[in-house]
Amino acid sequence: MAGSTFGTVFRITTWGESHGKALGVVVDGCPAGLPLDEQDIQRYLDRRKPGTSSLTTPRREDDLVEILSGVFEGRTTGTPISLLVRNTSQISRDYNEIASCYRPGHADYTFDAKYGFRDYRGGGRSSGRETVGRVAAGAIACKLLEQMGVKVCAYTRSIGGIEADLSRFDADAILSTKTAMPDRDADQKATAYLEQARAEYDSVGGCMECFVTGVPAGIGDPVFEKLDANLAKAILSIGAVKAVEIGDGTAVSSRLGSENNDSFRINDGTVTKATNRAGGILGGISDGDTILIRAHVKPTPSIFRTQQTVNRSGQEIDLQIKGRHDPVIVPRAVVVMECMTAVTVLDAMLLNMSARLDRIVDFYRR
Amino acid sequence: MAGSTFGTVFRITTWGESHGKALGVVVDGCPAGLPLDEQDIQRYLDRRKPGTSSLTTPRREDDLVEILSGVFEGRTTGTPISLLVRNTSQISRDYNEIASCYRPGHADYTFDAKYGFRDYRGGGRSSGRETVGRVAAGAIACKLLEQMGVKVCAYTRSIGGIEADLSRFDADAILSTKTAMPDRDADQKATAYLEQARAEYDSVGGCMECFVTGVPAGIGDPVFEKLDANLAKAILSIGAVKAVEIGDGTAVSSRLGSENNDSFRINDGTVTKATNRAGGILGGISDGDTILIRAHVKPTPSIFRTQQTVNRSGQEIDLQIKGRHDPVIVPRAVVVMECMTAVTVLDAMLLNMSARLDRIVDFYRR
Amino acid sequence: MAGSTFGTVFRITTWGESHGKALGVVVDGCPAGLPLDEQDIQRYLDRRKPGTSSLTTPRREDDLVEILSGVFEGRTTGTPISLLVRNTSQISRDYNEIASCYRPGHADYTFDAKYGFRDYRGGGRSSGRETVGRVAAGAIACKLLEQMGVKVCAYTRSIGGIEADLSRFDADAILSTKTAMPDRDADQKATAYLEQARAEYDSVGGCMECFVTGVPAGIGDPVFEKLDANLAKAILSIGAVKAVEIGDGTAVSSRLGSENNDSFRINDGTVTKATNRAGGILGGISDGDTILIRAHVKPTPSIFRTQQTVNRSGQEIDLQIKGRHDPVIVPRAVVVMECMTAVTVLDAMLLNMSARLDRIVDFYRR
Amino acid sequence: MAGSTFGTVFRITTWGESHGKALGVVVDGCPAGLPLDEQDIQRYLDRRKPGTSSLTTPRREDDLVEILSGVFEGRTTGTPISLLVRNTSQISRDYNEIASCYRPGHADYTFDAKYGFRDYRGGGRSSGRETVGRVAAGAIACKLLEQMGVKVCAYTRSIGGIEADLSRFDADAILSTKTAMPDRDADQKATAYLEQARAEYDSVGGCMECFVTGVPAGIGDPVFEKLDANLAKAILSIGAVKAVEIGDGTAVSSRLGSENNDSFRINDGTVTKATNRAGGILGGISDGDTILIRAHVKPTPSIFRTQQTVNRSGQEIDLQIKGRHDPVIVPRAVVVMECMTAVTVLDAMLLNMSARLDRIVDFYRR
Repeated sequence: MAGSTFGTVFRITTWGESHGKALGVVVDGCPAGLPLDEQDIQRYLDRRKPGTSSLTTPRREDDLVEILSGVFEGRTTGTPISLLVRNTSQISRDYNEIASCYRPGHADYTFDAKYGFRDYRGGGRSSGRETVGRVAAGAIACKLLEQMGVKVCAYTRSIGGIEADLSRFDADAILSTKTAMPDRDADQKATAYLEQARAEYDSVGGCMECFVTGVPAGIGDPVFEKLDANLAKAILSIGAVKAVEIGDGTAVSSRLGSENNDSFRINDGTVTKATNRAGGILGGISDGDTILIRAHVKPTPSIFRTQQTVNRSGQEIDLQIKGRHDPVIVPRAVVVMECMTAVTVLDAMLLNMSARLDRIVDFYRR
Repeated sequence: MAGSTFGTVFRITTWGESHGKALGVVVDGCPAGLPLDEQDIQRYLDRRKPGTSSLTTPRREDDLVEILSGVFEGRTTGTPISLLVRNTSQISRDYNEIASCYRPGHADYTFDAKYGFRDYRGGGRSSGRETVGRVAAGAIACKLLEQMGVKVCAYTRSIGGIEADLSRFDADAILSTKTAMPDRDADQKATAYLEQARAEYDSVGGCMECFVTGVPAGIGDPVFEKLDANLAKAILSIGAVKAVEIGDGTAVSSRLGSENNDSFRINDGTVTKATNRAGGILGGISDGDTILIRAHVKPTPSIFRTQQTVNRSGQEIDLQIKGRHDPVIVPRAVVVMECMTAVTVLDAMLLNMSARLDRIVDFYRR
Repeated sequence: MAGSTFGTVFRITTWGESHGKALGVVVDGCPAGLPLDEQDIQRYLDRRKPGTSSLTTPRREDDLVEILSGVFEGRTTGTPISLLVRNTSQISRDYNEIASCYRPGHADYTFDAKYGFRDYRGGGRSSGRETVGRVAAGAIACKLLEQMGVKVCAYTRSIGGIEADLSRFDADAILSTKTAMPDRDADQKATAYLEQARAEYDSVGGCMECFVTGVPAGIGDPVFEKLDANLAKAILSIGAVKAVEIGDGTAVSSRLGSENNDSFRINDGTVTKATNRAGGILGGISDGDTILIRAHVKPTPSIFRTQQTVNRSGQEIDLQIKGRHDPVIVPRAVVVMECMTAVTVLDAMLLNMSARLDRIVDFYRR
Repeated sequence: MAGSTFGTVFRITTWGESHGKALGVVVDGCPAGLPLDEQDIQRYLDRRKPGTSSLTTPRREDDLVEILSGVFEGRTTGTPISLLVRNTSQISRDYNEIASCYRPGHADYTFDAKYGFRDYRGGGRSSGRETVGRVAAGAIACKLLEQMGVKVCAYTRSIGGIEADLSRFDADAILSTKTAMPDRDADQKATAYLEQARAEYDSVGGCMECFVTGVPAGIGDPVFEKLDANLAKAILSIGAVKAVEIGDGTAVSSRLGSENNDSFRINDGTVTKATNRAGGILGGISDGDTILIRAHVKPTPSIFRTQQTVNRSGQEIDLQIKGRHDPVIVPRAVVVMECMTAVTVLDAMLLNMSARLDRIVDFYRR
């Protein structure tokens, strides 16, 4: 099935494998008139780039993006924007072992079951490198949203058991720490924990969070295209994510109604909520408050301990993975979450323009 | 936007409001040749029917389904199946207060913000009654899946803090207890807890779970159309769900890789996993193991305590909700989760038929 | 496959068979705030109703439409509008012969080939009655378009070789003549021709045309979603249509460029064209001029002469069709063409609202 | 809107402008296991390449295609296939005049009306070069179809008034003549006619035709997704096409039913038709016979005669177009028609696999 496209009006189609010639994305439906150059996109790609710290894989990719279409004289034209990133650092080593066996926690077996064979080099299409296209597209969505007064921000909420203290939220720390935590103390503790896990040939899970401000009330649809349902799909489609929460998320299942409802209040003539347990979405539609999503990410499945598994010939074997792998996925996935959130919210806002007849008539009569 | 359609090949379109004339669904893309009559569907609708116990709203609806098209001589024809359920028990009481104010935890405000006004009677399109169409369609999906060797089963995992003990899983209890728990002891405790909450004019949240057996390895797609991503969307599109977990879900974020990976093993010549932390999905594609999803549901937002809120005129008011409301959403939502899961898995299985050229050639050359 | 849905933002899903219990449509994505009642829709259904003249089948159906959802206090709410028309005049006669044989020019054989069996009563889903849902939905699209300043008008261009003279275009004649021609002289000639064909147990083909005024320049998309490409699909999806032309259509293939180009001119400060050979669409996008589409419709395949055909057992047989059939399809298909055109143009206009960033910003900043 | 994607299961997304850096396509949903290399695609691209005869623009592009993803060890993997063609021959001449004026018959004005500005170099996205991506994708579809026993063949039917004589159909001539006619005599006459038109600074329209053999009965859907409706959209989405006919097309509108119906017959135990006026499709579904489509293409709008038009400032001007232009579009569009037909038929065949429950059960139970 055609499964590499996301979005209805602002629609992205990603392509590429870990060790293929290149990766990229086609962004179709981008409104005309947005100032855009390669630096706008490069900034986001650099945030997911490997090799920038001791916590990430030593594979070094420049991940330089090239805009191939859809931009003319510095502005988007409304036609598809094709973005290309060449792979340059594929090490041509021996993949024989990985080719013939199924790594625990990876998609090797399921790819073979589905397609009959697979591009086994570095995980192929199920590699984390697949997100290069998502981030390149998301950079455009973020820039568009900014012009519409909307801001998206993701960060690492926790690594292992170590939580960031959000009461001292430090936005700069997200971009400058190794863990992408908005709290430098937690970053230090988490870093130490990660170094220890790595020393023990192990890996660590984590939790990331994303908030969106500036979304007006009324975005999203009441039934299947609920804004939170689409966000859940967007975020769970990021490899290694195993759970998604909106607002207070899992906590609601052990609460009383009187504890969970947010009272509406009037603030400067505007409807607001006294609390935001709902995470900015009621009945699938934004309520004007901050939108909040959380994602739980499993530990990197590639660990250097010997593991039990099977090979393609149906034999049980012991496997020791070699190569380059981050001991934690979250810090580099944070920008992917930000980008997928941006694409989802933007698409919902564009679709929302046709919700009311009076606004349509007004749009066309001017 | 058109937001009432779900699925690509097996595609359902629901319609109807709580207090409108009727509710229903059009099931398009149902394969030809399935034996189907109204009883097949009624069985599922009866599971979500109100008025069956002291824990559900005393509103009594027969919710009798009528098949209007797509079935001929007892079998589906491959053309759209239109299913209709008339509303019969709408009490024509005074909705003036609810019409002009925004109930906390409900979609009243967000509907007004989106559409400019709303059908305020009983929640309109954002009522739980919207799920009538989902369940009617899901009944067909479940019957189709059975013929393909796939079984879907949902139940209440917990209510408030009270968890079902799955080590003594009792499938009969799901259909016969008031809470839809697969554990009669937990059901009794949860029932007592609910009665107490109701006595205190309060409501309670809960958690529901769904497993799917018989899905072969290879179903789902690697990137945006991951099977778990689509399940997350399907389940989070059910009103009041605030979090979705796949397999071990949120627990993975505080684990080590060595604790989280499932080893592959050979069992009777087939690839299996020694454990199933992944919940039957790796890289977005089924691995042949049991698929497991969990959903956290907020407490019923309609509580009978006085709450602070605002009205359409922008004034802060005190609100006391009247009417008929369940003190907990989960027991009646369980069948909705089962149905949405079935629709999602079925659609993925139908789409998967074109994954491999050799199988396509085989299909057409016979 | 799910093939009964049309449109992206304004999306219609039709259902129902000729001799089933009912036919209908779900209109999803209809903007909120349109005044709508059953009479708005009935007016259009009455135009396709059988039994209104000697030229149409004597089957009499009241085709009374019921609005089941999506309208509250006389206005559309933005949620799905479900429309229902009960079948009341199905004659329960013996369908044995038709059940077991394949009528020439009909879809009997192809349905069996696809689905393994079919609802053979009156053509089932491939009957002209399938268009009841299209017309009901199109009535809403037409009313929306009117509020946006757009008018759609279809009529019979020719029957057999007899052409309407458009130089004396008589709009009233479309609704009042038996042939739906905008020329009463041509109507009389065509009627005589039809009576003769009927007397000879034969049927007649025809051509219908549709124009749209008031569409601003800029509607439609440059590549696959060209406005004319979508119109072609919409119109060719009407049963019995075998060709579609835009503007001067087939004539262009024998012209010189100097004969075919339309010069641009300035008229009252607005860009116009000196001629309109293009039919109001250039490069798939409306140019502000009148949009013109033409469709060629085959003769009614049900004729009362003895025909050679085969039965389900693979035997060659002689067939004599009985029952009620129009000797020409076009007059009743005209309103279907009008409705499908309206749905297509409306959808393109709603989608076009997100084409330019400046207008999006303006929309959300107000 | 996102308008550069075509197809549901086999889905292509094209991108690129005439004078941008590159053009390309992402083919998503291609089944795994097809042997594929760049030569398979290059062969098709070479058929639409300019500069190969005196009848085509002297612009010379090698149009070398690069496969960037989705193929591993010589076979498709089931993941997106990204195809890239660099533009190399853009002449960096002065586009000032064309930038500020609207060429008759072109999309200059409609692009400006839609997007506010445009990439004016060589037509930008509305250039014939846009079809590079379609042809590259279609080459893959054709190769897949061959393995499924289906063959697609398009050719020039007529140029100006000069028709190919199909009674002496010469398949080799399609690839070897300048006009892509399957008749060398007609090719010579048409060539002379074209040379004369060119000498008079004019251009010529034409008609192209495509047939498909080997499609089993049962492909396509009964209502909106009729096979012929989708073919019509596919073909009318090719720039400059103004009319599409299926089978006998426009001729049906002046026929009697007794002249137009095709009798069913039995041939070697198989249902066939005595004639094929229907063009292989009945009720939107293939009947097993040869599928036949015809498209009417307008003359190249770029002619070297002085034409009246307007500029962006709203002034009426005289325009004389310079540059490189074919005097006829059809010969190079033939391969585009073949490719769009292939993509449409393939997609319908893949979707058809889920039409019947017995075949689904059979597929999954093996």
